[in-house]
Amino acid sequence: MVPHLVTALAGPINELEQRILESLPATERWFRLEWMEHTPPFYTAVDVRNAGFKLAPVETNLFPGGFGRLTDAMLPLAVQAAMAAIEKICPEAKNLLLVPDSRLDDPDYRLNLERLTQVFTQAGLNVRLGSADPAIQAPQEYAGSGATPLRLEPLLRQRGRVGLKDFDPCTILLNTDLAGGVPKMLTSVHEQYLLPPLHAGWSTRRRSTHFRAYDEVAKKFAKLLGMDPWLINPMVASVETGAGLAGSEALQTQADQLLQKVRRKYKEYGITEKPFLIAKADHGPDGFGMRTVRDAKDLAGLAPDTPEGSAVILQEGVPTFERVDDAVAEPVVYMIDRYVVGGFYRAHAGRGFDEPLNAPGARIVPLGFADAGVLPKPGVRPGASAPNRFYMYGVVARLAMLAAAYELEATDPDAEIYE
Amino acid sequence: MVPHLVTALAGPINELEQRILESLPATERWFRLEWMEHTPPFYTAVDVRNAGFKLAPVETNLFPGGFGRLTDAMLPLAVQAAMAAIEKICPEAKNLLLVPDSRLDDPDYRLNLERLTQVFTQAGLNVRLGSADPAIQAPQEYAGSGATPLRLEPLLRQRGRVGLKDFDPCTILLNTDLAGGVPKMLTSVHEQYLLPPLHAGWSTRRRSTHFRAYDEVAKKFAKLLGMDPWLINPMVASVETGAGLAGSEALQTQADQLLQKVRRKYKEYGITEKPFLIAKADHGPDGFGMRTVRDAKDLAGLAPDTPEGSAVILQEGVPTFERVDDAVAEPVVYMIDRYVVGGFYRAHAGRGFDEPLNAPGARIVPLGFADAGVLPKPGVRPGASAPNRFYMYGVVARLAMLAAAYELEATDPDAEIYE
Repeated sequence: MVPHLVTALAGPINELEQRILESLPATERWFRLEWMEHTPPFYTAVDVRNAGFKLAPVETNLFPGGFGRLTDAMLPLAVQAAMAAIEKICPEAKNLLLVPDSRLDDPDYRLNLERLTQVFTQAGLNVRLGSADPAIQAPQEYAGSGATPLRLEPLLRQRGRVGLKDFDPCTILLNTDLAGGVPKMLTSVHEQYLLPPLHAGWSTRRRSTHFRAYDEVAKKFAKLLGMDPWLINPMVASVETGAGLAGSEALQTQADQLLQKVRRKYKEYGITEKPFLIAKADHGPDGFGMRTVRDAKDLAGLAPDTPEGSAVILQEGVPTFERVDDAVAEPVVYMIDRYVVGGFYRAHAGRGFDEPLNAPGARIVPLGFADAGVLPKPGVRPGASAPNRFYMYGVVARLAMLAAAYELEATDPDAEIYE
Repeated sequence: MVPHLVTALAGPINELEQRILESLPATERWFRLEWMEHTPPFYTAVDVRNAGFKLAPVETNLFPGGFGRLTDAMLPLAVQAAMAAIEKICPEAKNLLLVPDSRLDDPDYRLNLERLTQVFTQAGLNVRLGSADPAIQAPQEYAGSGATPLRLEPLLRQRGRVGLKDFDPCTILLNTDLAGGVPKMLTSVHEQYLLPPLHAGWSTRRRSTHFRAYDEVAKKFAKLLGMDPWLINPMVASVETGAGLAGSEALQTQADQLLQKVRRKYKEYGITEKPFLIAKADHGPDGFGMRTVRDAKDLAGLAPDTPEGSAVILQEGVPTFERVDDAVAEPVVYMIDRYVVGGFYRAHAGRGFDEPLNAPGARIVPLGFADAGVLPKPGVRPGASAPNRFYMYGVVARLAMLAAAYELEATDPDAEIYE
């Protein structure tokens, strides 16, 4: 089930793997205690990069669209996790309204919606799909993977509640990242559960906030394991780029400083790779496009192209030494509630180990990840066991999910402040 | 993964399958609401019999000893369910003390203990094994399935807490049915979680109480689905047999009456099989041995052999039409907390379709049951789909688990009575 993987495993990452496995009950208990204090996002997908010498999350998606990529073997875990989530949030729930994004023309995305429908039906909910798109005025059907078409209906707002014709849901599950703003139809929903909350959408989210939260999480976890947090934490700097050329200069200065910091860390660990950064918009699903920055000069003239007032984050680049066949690959870990329910590899034959892979031309390789990720094999030599590697990926992905929980608390507009 | 199964599927059971699948979200929601009011047993194994015309649980084990029989593919589900259970009961738990029964000489039972250790370690607990057997005065080692031996240590009682040397658990998990009575070491444990509670052991449990609770559960569920509860409910009568010959006569009279009732039901549904009963002790793991009663006269002279004061239950026999290869078989469904985590078939080549199979000579056939049992395939013709059948088994097994929850509430010595 696991395709041919090539990983240059050497040095610190083996130590990390060993430490994570040795500390397994302590790690799981630590997560359990964190989840007593913090609410996990409803569902989360995390891109992980394994550099051999370092293992870190690089993107955290709070509206994952790849549930269709999980293998059938992972579905029972997803159903069980969905049951646990529903039971906690709204056990009396009967109807679930799923609000997709606008990618209905993409068969992969439709498969994602079919899977989510299947998972939540099986968890005991009547599931229907509704759209806030004003262009959808009557029910529309889209071809499904089987005989049953996907049916998308216009959202209705009645007496403060959001629903469909003859369908009053107690829970509304968003599968749209709200990058285009929050539809008016979905604002001021107080009588129903709206999940994830609106401030998990890109109209509020900032990558810089997320990675600040991750910094805190990584430090706590590294302390538990007695290790350098840098081994699981990419360094980040965020820069306002709205000021035109001045912004561009500020960006280059930041990039220079960050590259210096990475270089020092590489030296400390005897890593001979050439450091690089990834520049990406501070918010939005892709912003002005992620790009690799090997030298601060690569950024010259970049900022003025971006919309005024927007910001860029510079993230320490984590090379990936995972390969699927001959393509550079990175694992993506899927979670529902606090549970890892599966994952896949994103592979890109046209990209290098120091480039973002979430780009046109990427190929998804489903993996029998679930069993493996949940069940490490203690006693196996570090670096030699796929289950152990996948377990480690699941730990790091859950750290990013926990950071998202911290982030959503920090950005909650309805949060009560206790001083 | 699924061995060759032969099932004579005809008539009502297909209707039942269809109705359960049609009512899937309603069924799952119904369970969710029941679990809001009632606490599931910590773990449960249920023997299910599928007669083709009827599907019913016949035994509910609250200290399952067959976790070693589950396939590897089911383990992630077990780990996830264990995480959910621990999180609810004692999230801060660090150490778990597992108290096995005395079958350590049986390699299958040792495998069960290894599996439980693996599952709860993975769920974030340090697991050690302790024995209340006064013969165990020093740590003893038993061969495991791998290189690591199983280590059994003597229980210590200190200042009201039960533990081991240098091991103070917050949770004690019993894997012994306490048929020999409750060891003094385990009484009056008030500072630690003792799971399942002592009154789940055979020193308190009565099958008649369990099946009375199941009768209530079956009626409620049948009402939800709009069907005759008899289709999922074996009729039961319990008889005190302590009074010698008089007891024996009472038993025969009850048997006659119960056979009459079954005959009437068979007539109503046009079933041409010959009705039979199963006689078993009202308590104890096997009591005086289960036996098939085809005629009340089969019971003549039986009662005086049983210990004075003991009782017998007569249970409507549910023939099994499941076969694995050529052997008569019955499914056994394993659950942790409220979740189905797997199962296997118990097959017995030397027994008939109307006889108990849990007897010397039985063979266990592990099944890839979990995926199947959690993920039915709607739209498939009733009776034609193994996943749909397994889902239905999981529903009926969960009904028996719910009955055990009712039963444990009714027998709880510490229950607060609200009038």
